[in-house]
Amino acid sequence: NQVASPTVTYTKKQMARHILKAVVVNSGNANAATGEQGMKDVKVIAKSAANYLGLHPYEIAVASTGIIGQFLPMDALLTGLTQLLEQPLQQDVEAFSESILTTDLISKIAIKSQKIGKKTVSVGGITKGSGMIAPNMATNLTFMVTDVALDSARLQSFLNHSVDETFNMLSVDTDMSTNDMVLIFSTGKYKFSLNDADEVKQFQQLMSDVCEELVLKLARDGEGADHVIVVDVVRAASVQDAKRIAKSVVDSPLVKTAIHGNDPNWGRILMAVGKVVGVKLNEKKMQLSINGHLIFQNGRPVTFDEAVLREEMKKDTVCLTVDMGLAKSHARAWGCDLSKKYIEINTDYN
Amino acid sequence: NQVASPTVTYTKKQMARHILKAVVVNSGNANAATGEQGMKDVKVIAKSAANYLGLHPYEIAVASTGIIGQFLPMDALLTGLTQLLEQPLQQDVEAFSESILTTDLISKIAIKSQKIGKKTVSVGGITKGSGMIAPNMATNLTFMVTDVALDSARLQSFLNHSVDETFNMLSVDTDMSTNDMVLIFSTGKYKFSLNDADEVKQFQQLMSDVCEELVLKLARDGEGADHVIVVDVVRAASVQDAKRIAKSVVDSPLVKTAIHGNDPNWGRILMAVGKVVGVKLNEKKMQLSINGHLIFQNGRPVTFDEAVLREEMKKDTVCLTVDMGLAKSHARAWGCDLSKKYIEINTDYN
Repeated sequence: NQVASPTVTYTKKQMARHILKAVVVNSGNANAATGEQGMKDVKVIAKSAANYLGLHPYEIAVASTGIIGQFLPMDALLTGLTQLLEQPLQQDVEAFSESILTTDLISKIAIKSQKIGKKTVSVGGITKGSGMIAPNMATNLTFMVTDVALDSARLQSFLNHSVDETFNMLSVDTDMSTNDMVLIFSTGKYKFSLNDADEVKQFQQLMSDVCEELVLKLARDGEGADHVIVVDVVRAASVQDAKRIAKSVVDSPLVKTAIHGNDPNWGRILMAVGKVVGVKLNEKKMQLSINGHLIFQNGRPVTFDEAVLREEMKKDTVCLTVDMGLAKSHARAWGCDLSKKYIEINTDYN
Repeated sequence: NQVASPTVTYTKKQMARHILKAVVVNSGNANAATGEQGMKDVKVIAKSAANYLGLHPYEIAVASTGIIGQFLPMDALLTGLTQLLEQPLQQDVEAFSESILTTDLISKIAIKSQKIGKKTVSVGGITKGSGMIAPNMATNLTFMVTDVALDSARLQSFLNHSVDETFNMLSVDTDMSTNDMVLIFSTGKYKFSLNDADEVKQFQQLMSDVCEELVLKLARDGEGADHVIVVDVVRAASVQDAKRIAKSVVDSPLVKTAIHGNDPNWGRILMAVGKVVGVKLNEKKMQLSINGHLIFQNGRPVTFDEAVLREEMKKDTVCLTVDMGLAKSHARAWGCDLSKKYIEINTDYN
């Protein structure tokens, strides 16, 4: 977001040095649109944490999430930070994951290990976010860690690739936070060259699998959501087309409300595909399926048993497959249905 | 929408001849995604109407609105059409405006007259639409008429200009119908050259005023809406920037729900401005106001009386002014708040 919290501006700047060693996170107050005071506060937090940890302030990342436009309660925050650093719950992943939540209902952790070459390596992540989640990863704070020792440029490149396919294809409500952040740290435990092409592929997949699990947890906890929506666009003319179509479908309020009502109103899916400006599309070549049930083919509806499909759509996850029938490109997007509960949460937020 | 109803494809084709003389409209069934059968049905409707009216089929426009993906009930439709044409309620604007509604709660008519030069000329319009209304005019059927005699290319150019500033800046829910149409007819009553620059400007303004009144009626009748939202972006770097920002704010679910809750949560407005990719923006130069009350300036919140502003926001129309502080371009967008009622209407539509 162009209106970025000073936490984002500050952390981005420190990232350029490639030696981040710790992150301080607060929830409840986003410290966004707070002008120069906001930046001063971030620097005080980084300095305090650095003092306690014996690090340089530029080795500290700072992240915030919560309401926009209010100054941080610095006295309370620094008192809390001091207490935390004097008695750190160093191993308590659950406590950390819970402490960073806002409107989230559940904490979100994913850890996966895999034998790559001769070593069993791990990637883990903790995420938060429930609303204001849209194209390019909004109000999402994610902190990941791996025991693979890689230089930071290389690690960043793996992360970018996985984020593009997962976090950047997630949308809860099309809104985008001022405070987004996905950071990855390495414990440096396993020296690991990853020069073997197969091993590179496996490590990338491991990281993407962790990201996908986190994204699914975010979608499942989307504000007021009853269903996860997965949109697979296949046989599109280009990857860009496939991504834009997948996002348009997963973002459509009419698709989201239809799924909320277990209603196989596939016309709305077609509408959401057609509203994307400039993508290649031939209605007669398109096929639509809901959880594998074919509902539209050759430019016209397919006869289906509505009662069966309605039952199918009561499942926790509803997969929409949009087959463009044109070429070989594909993309997947994640989202959730739109309910009265979403309205309730966001009407009464402040 | 790239998935266009055959009514749109057909009517567009006939428009190229510039001699449309009548329009047949049905509501309840959009005749969209109905393949070749859908196009056949449109042609039968045009032919039937032309026969009764003593016109050529290519002088008939056809428009539909309603559910997507079901074939028109042609027997009922043609029986109705015959009855209608045998006993036409030729002057009954109200009856027509009501007959084309779908989820609309009120019929929407605007007529304005003005003395331009030596003649008092009129422009009138009838519109329908309540949901699936987004950038570029979705599920909106609008039929306009003027007594000014202009060749059709000239009339179309006036219409395009007014539509760009009004219908194309209206958004109820970001979704876009397969069946959009705005047509204008001239009765040819007043020969009127409109070569005088002032007169051209006055006629354009008259048409835009009618369009704006129709757009306000559409926003007011947005599905489940309690408030009309008007977003004025001023002092932007370009008209395109101003339009994109205005649409982003009026489309943001978090802005819409905040307004639904009479909540001056201006941080969400800032977020919605900042999420537009690539627009020129300097947070420190921006100012935000709600119904004229300044709430953000110089990159930080302004102290305001929240109780007063909450009371102000209970008004029927909530105007958000986004002053970018950069240059001279401006744009206005219209929309409505997002309520539980919207979810209810669209969960149970089918």
